[in-house]
Amino acid sequence: MTGPFNPPVRTLMGPGPSDVNPRILEALSRPTIGHLDPAFIGLMDSIKELLQYAFQTQNRLTLPVSAPGSAGMEACFVNLLEPGDTVVVCQNGVFGGRMKENVERCGATAVMVQDDWGKAVDPTKVEEALKANPQAKVLAFVHAETSTGARSDAKTLCALAKQYDCLSIVDTVTSLGGIEVDVDGWGADAIYSGTQKCLSCVPGISPVTFSERAIEVIKARKNKVQSWFLDMDLVMGYWGGESKRAYHHTAPINALYALHESLLILKEEGLQAAWERHDLHHRALAAGLEAMGLSLVVAPEERLPQLNSVSIPDGVDDATVRQQLLANYSLEIGAGLGALAGKVWRIGLMGFACNRKNVLFCLGALDSTLTAMGADINSGVAVNAANKVYG
Amino acid sequence: MTGPFNPPVRTLMGPGPSDVNPRILEALSRPTIGHLDPAFIGLMDSIKELLQYAFQTQNRLTLPVSAPGSAGMEACFVNLLEPGDTVVVCQNGVFGGRMKENVERCGATAVMVQDDWGKAVDPTKVEEALKANPQAKVLAFVHAETSTGARSDAKTLCALAKQYDCLSIVDTVTSLGGIEVDVDGWGADAIYSGTQKCLSCVPGISPVTFSERAIEVIKARKNKVQSWFLDMDLVMGYWGGESKRAYHHTAPINALYALHESLLILKEEGLQAAWERHDLHHRALAAGLEAMGLSLVVAPEERLPQLNSVSIPDGVDDATVRQQLLANYSLEIGAGLGALAGKVWRIGLMGFACNRKNVLFCLGALDSTLTAMGADINSGVAVNAANKVYG
Repeated sequence: MTGPFNPPVRTLMGPGPSDVNPRILEALSRPTIGHLDPAFIGLMDSIKELLQYAFQTQNRLTLPVSAPGSAGMEACFVNLLEPGDTVVVCQNGVFGGRMKENVERCGATAVMVQDDWGKAVDPTKVEEALKANPQAKVLAFVHAETSTGARSDAKTLCALAKQYDCLSIVDTVTSLGGIEVDVDGWGADAIYSGTQKCLSCVPGISPVTFSERAIEVIKARKNKVQSWFLDMDLVMGYWGGESKRAYHHTAPINALYALHESLLILKEEGLQAAWERHDLHHRALAAGLEAMGLSLVVAPEERLPQLNSVSIPDGVDDATVRQQLLANYSLEIGAGLGALAGKVWRIGLMGFACNRKNVLFCLGALDSTLTAMGADINSGVAVNAANKVYG
Repeated sequence: MTGPFNPPVRTLMGPGPSDVNPRILEALSRPTIGHLDPAFIGLMDSIKELLQYAFQTQNRLTLPVSAPGSAGMEACFVNLLEPGDTVVVCQNGVFGGRMKENVERCGATAVMVQDDWGKAVDPTKVEEALKANPQAKVLAFVHAETSTGARSDAKTLCALAKQYDCLSIVDTVTSLGGIEVDVDGWGADAIYSGTQKCLSCVPGISPVTFSERAIEVIKARKNKVQSWFLDMDLVMGYWGGESKRAYHHTAPINALYALHESLLILKEEGLQAAWERHDLHHRALAAGLEAMGLSLVVAPEERLPQLNSVSIPDGVDDATVRQQLLANYSLEIGAGLGALAGKVWRIGLMGFACNRKNVLFCLGALDSTLTAMGADINSGVAVNAANKVYG
């Protein structure tokens, strides 16, 4: 390839990135300014306030990490953990496993609480693990498991962490903006998210927020944070806002323009309205899929509206269907990940991509593709079933 | 701030970010696609090839780290070092000090070789340190010190590393695209750079490249890399190109569109032409500054054309001048950093910003600003002196 790259125009209904609002792409391409420009300081303040709104927190240490969600996860672990610490890690999908990797790479010990993939984290098991491990410093769990579509009860889990004198680390990569995230209400301590899910921003940035309790732990560390780049004590010198901004690293200026625009869009809609929109379109999509005879992996009460794992019907080849959707409809849905690879599709309804047009389009495309392949489904009924939900 | 952020249009002649070519801003805002989209795989291959061209290397492990240059630096250190290792670190400015931080946070020992800020690294001192520390595993140095504008002799230093059986880690954040970077010719082992300097791309990505010797060291590690996000063994699974791309983290899709466009622009111009352009405009700028009576910090034979540190004349207030340039000309020049804070300005001529218009504009603005403040300079001669260089 020696010429410019002209990407195909997709409909992104996988596990993220999701369709990006054109307002955000336009903001992204505004003229670059310096990371110490006085005009940029105002933008930073505004981003911080909007993130506090999105996370529902007053935490002063609320900022976007200059790298994707995986780095946000790492920021939470490397800042709170020191060698020899113990962490109770809940795993009910891929991302709990990644948390374990993070814990161990900090020289700490992960006590794993395993739940079936596709189910919520079981608070009873978590309490047992916390009781059995009084030395535990942190409870870590994924609020919205992107690999399965299961939603865990963050409020209950954070309360358990507090009860057993643990800090909580919460993955809200896929939840933020799609379902309720209530950092202060939960009393969560270190939370990270991503931009490319229900914020419908471009990928590459990870919003994080730390409670006062977490900041105290960071300030009282015996050892330096093992990552210089992610050292919150240093990052705070640039994002802190209380004194002169000290250069730490060059902020990803244009990506922050985009994040700001995406947060403005969320604020304009309002959190409650955004959650209701995700719920509505999820119900329509689920009705359509079920009318077709497909089944969702997650039980209704634990489903994430923004990430729908659908069991692949017997005899249907996973990759062929996804390739045909891409080739014939320029529609991306997600493959299964980890233990669910080849067994499910993951249909995202995230942020800007969560709308009636996409629901009907996706159902229509899937119906037609599966029918043409001779799959054992109820053809021609999915779109109607979805429309009934819309009323 | 509750509305959209409309950045001022600046001329960026600081230490980076530099002015971004509009082609790159346009590429940045193209429609987002998925990080596992077949169309994206083609883009990844193309970026890899173009980076190999820019770095002048055949290294197969050549890729953009999904975070700024500081994370690229960290990627080099955390992948090559294990606890207990010794690294000879050359320091002649801010970034050598950051290398020391990285070494120590890996549980390794840094043996420092200090040179004056504004001077190149002295190979004689480096050889003494390598002789005195036969246990050293790595020699680390900054090719182009962004904090001072000094250029070190990478070829000689990499050869010393080899001679003393060390790997070399080389910071080319400010050099890549502005002066010769010859990774294979030098025999360098781990090299990182940034996008927002002489590539004139938006900040946020760090191109890196690792030699086969470095890959062997990574493959033979006793301990896991302390950063999951920056673990090259895992990142290779996504960027490797030899087998199926395995999901590691969500790539910053749009930032990679921009990087691709910036590398295309560099290839179109050609490396040699780009270096000559930086040299020409540097000479014009230097002639103008010297005619004005200002002096450059770095000796001519060690100067980086793309980063000109100028001593602030006696009695002139650093911040006032920079504020006036910003307010009256929308022109950003850089402040001094670390030991040089308050003593120098750093005038960048990087990538797209390195052109005749900017040289004349900057000299004119500085001349007028300093004259109006009653500074003891030769007024009204700078632009002519620069024009004489252009002939």
